[in-house]
Amino acid sequence: ELQNLLDRLHPADVAHILEAMPLEDRLMIWELVKAERDGEILLEVSDAVRETLIATMDSGEMLAATGQLDADEIADLAPDLPRDVMEDVFQSLPMEEREQLRAAMSYPEDAVGALMDFDVVTIREDVTLEVVLRYLRRLDELPDHTDQLFVVDRDEHLKGVLPVNRLLVSDPDATVGSVMAKEMVKLHPSDNAHQAAQAFERYDLVSASVVNAEDKLIGRVTVNAVMDFIREQAESEALNLAGLREEEDLFAPVWKSLKNRWTWLAINLVTAFIASRVIGVFEDSIEKLVALAALMPIIAGIGGNSGNQTITMIVRALALGQLNAGNARKLFAKEIGVSAVNGVVWGSVVGLFAFFIYGSGSLGLVMTLAMMLNLLLAALLGVLIPLTLHKLGRDPAAGSSVMITAVTDSGGFFIFLGLATLFLV
Amino acid sequence: ELQNLLDRLHPADVAHILEAMPLEDRLMIWELVKAERDGEILLEVSDAVRETLIATMDSGEMLAATGQLDADEIADLAPDLPRDVMEDVFQSLPMEEREQLRAAMSYPEDAVGALMDFDVVTIREDVTLEVVLRYLRRLDELPDHTDQLFVVDRDEHLKGVLPVNRLLVSDPDATVGSVMAKEMVKLHPSDNAHQAAQAFERYDLVSASVVNAEDKLIGRVTVNAVMDFIREQAESEALNLAGLREEEDLFAPVWKSLKNRWTWLAINLVTAFIASRVIGVFEDSIEKLVALAALMPIIAGIGGNSGNQTITMIVRALALGQLNAGNARKLFAKEIGVSAVNGVVWGSVVGLFAFFIYGSGSLGLVMTLAMMLNLLLAALLGVLIPLTLHKLGRDPAAGSSVMITAVTDSGGFFIFLGLATLFLV
Ligand SMILES: [Mg+2]
Ligand SMILES: [Mg+2]
Ligand SMILES: [Mg+2]
Ligand SMILES: [Mg+2]
Ligand SMILES: [Mg+2]
Ligand SMILES: [Mg+2]
Ligand SMILES: [Mg+2]
Ligand SMILES: [Mg+2]
Ligand SMILES: [Mg+2]
Ligand SMILES: [Mg+2]
Ligand SMILES: [Mg+2]
Ligand SMILES: [Mg+2]
Ligand SMILES: [Mg+2]
Repeated sequence: ELQNLLDRLHPADVAHILEAMPLEDRLMIWELVKAERDGEILLEVSDAVRETLIATMDSGEMLAATGQLDADEIADLAPDLPRDVMEDVFQSLPMEEREQLRAAMSYPEDAVGALMDFDVVTIREDVTLEVVLRYLRRLDELPDHTDQLFVVDRDEHLKGVLPVNRLLVSDPDATVGSVMAKEMVKLHPSDNAHQAAQAFERYDLVSASVVNAEDKLIGRVTVNAVMDFIREQAESEALNLAGLREEEDLFAPVWKSLKNRWTWLAINLVTAFIASRVIGVFEDSIEKLVALAALMPIIAGIGGNSGNQTITMIVRALALGQLNAGNARKLFAKEIGVSAVNGVVWGSVVGLFAFFIYGSGSLGLVMTLAMMLNLLLAALLGVLIPLTLHKLGRDPAAGSSVMITAVTDSGGFFIFLGLATLFLV
Repeated sequence: ELQNLLDRLHPADVAHILEAMPLEDRLMIWELVKAERDGEILLEVSDAVRETLIATMDSGEMLAATGQLDADEIADLAPDLPRDVMEDVFQSLPMEEREQLRAAMSYPEDAVGALMDFDVVTIREDVTLEVVLRYLRRLDELPDHTDQLFVVDRDEHLKGVLPVNRLLVSDPDATVGSVMAKEMVKLHPSDNAHQAAQAFERYDLVSASVVNAEDKLIGRVTVNAVMDFIREQAESEALNLAGLREEEDLFAPVWKSLKNRWTWLAINLVTAFIASRVIGVFEDSIEKLVALAALMPIIAGIGGNSGNQTITMIVRALALGQLNAGNARKLFAKEIGVSAVNGVVWGSVVGLFAFFIYGSGSLGLVMTLAMMLNLLLAALLGVLIPLTLHKLGRDPAAGSSVMITAVTDSGGFFIFLGLATLFLV
């Protein structure tokens, strides 16, 4: 009966069930899945879970699993399949799909080519809509997400698109050429997938053409692929922010989780060691005025929080393409302004805190001044770090947060202990 | 010529230009926008920027701006329009749209009702496809994203859907009833928008029906609305993580930015004060062994990083519905395992660091032990905090990170200084 239920479930639902199960149960269920559904389910599970499933399959099963898939879908699985299986898959494909598979595999994950499929319905410009309708009726079904037909000449050059909605409301005697739209979104396979996703969001697209350098139609991108891409990007950004290299199988063995988390912990350890040595320089001052040890984390912590707020604003503006040479200066002025006010307000609060706990006015004043300076530093570098990473062609989202925290920690300790050494001890 | 360019741009592109401009320039451009395009552009800009644009419009302009919009779109603008303008808008609408507007405004932002539109094309079950095709041809155009026609009886009960793709390939003499799909996604307006979004992602939908409690069709949700929802959710999550209450106009005046950022800074200040007092308790020990002051931020920092990694894993699993009573225990065991290994490895590293810098083996050992215990604490609470928030019906994404950092900071200081006091001074 479990078998029966599985057969009736949508592949995405089976995938979800597999992901939520500990390894042992997962493989038990995976055994029950019909061989001809293996491929479509492998497409839906997360990368980490896919690895665990493929690990239990032999070459024959893997080859069979790809048998039901289109070339673009096989390309999505390819990175997880052994090289010799992929060779067999290649051999098993008809010539045209072999070319498509080669094409789909040749683009990096964040290029339009990786999102593209080949399910295009093409028509000619000079026929009437009546002819188009008769042509469609001879097909068993149309590919999913066929919201437009692509109008090409005999050399596959893209001349226009005929939205299905327009086909339905127009006079059947009209020609395709007179009804089709000549302005359309044309993507290139090497285009950045981010930009394609932005086009889908802005113009509310369901599908868009992909053409090569000679303007020949080679495929299309559909909104469901774009939505998956957006989701994956958002996830991997959230994971990176927290210091996880990639999504983890919830039930990954301990050593796999460790691999995923160590890079970040190591980087943070280095910055923590540096901060520790900064404090070490001022050990004499701390020995004389031990209150400094209790107060210094406040300066560092609030500086880090404020810096991360600025970073987040700037990274978001960069991602949306809202930052340019013309307005960077204005933005800089704003962030400095915010940090100045914050410095006065929070500086006073922490100054009063120090005064009430330790009864020393001068200690309170040093605390206030240090808070103001560290917030200023946080604002300055909160703008400069992501802008610089962006200029260097690096992803500002990934490294910015570690860097600003390192700066506000070490910087905060240095500023506070330095001022205290100058004025208090 | 600028005017001309603006008129030809897609509203989403105009919105993007407005968002990237400092306030003064933005309002200058906004003046140039034709009145009849105001509404569609207001729909596209971010909430923060919309406020700045509406602030310059008088009642007449606002009323005119809504004139070109559908009821569901007016509902999206409603929260930003003055009450008296909304009354006028209501009066200006025909009866049917007035009802639609009332309905659309009655749902919270994260309900399906807020994503819904009313652009449904309905047909009857007993007619032939030929009749449907003739009916469609009498329309000027079909609503965007019409990938299926909704089959209803005379009381508007939803009986099935006729995918346009199936309409195109099927025999025109067949009846709608024999060709339509009877299994379909049916949403209810009070359904959680997250779950609707998941359905769109899993089943690759372009549109889905919305029915009321009596199974009557009241509207539909389309993939573009879902994509906007997903984007907004991801953004607000990223902003909340960094301690920003909401998206900020890049060129917001300083006081507005401050309002957006103060809550979080205040919360963090409180947790920093607590950590500071924890250290204060051990001032005697620090005075005797000042190395403790330099080493304690390492323990707290790495604990916080590790705890945030765990939190991120758990929050993600909760969001995807992958966590349940059955597997929580397994997950717990895994995270404890990861933290135990991390504790041994990083504990040894920091212990050696302490030994090499200060030449004291016992200080190194205390450092190692403290690191291990704080990582264990981080793993324990990294699982418990989001699970508890989830059980209490709160959003685990929002508060978890602050709480785990507070625990690993104060807890880390307490563990390290406590152990040092016991064994070293
Ligand atoms: Mg199987
Ligand atoms: Mg992938
Ligand atoms: Mg196929
Ligand atoms: Mg396909
Ligand atoms: Mg692909
Ligand atoms: Mg859109
Ligand atoms: Mg910290
Ligand atoms: Mg105007
Ligand atoms: Mg909104
Ligand atoms: Mg209208
Ligand atoms: Mg509409
Ligand atoms: Mg709405
Ligand atoms: Mg999908």
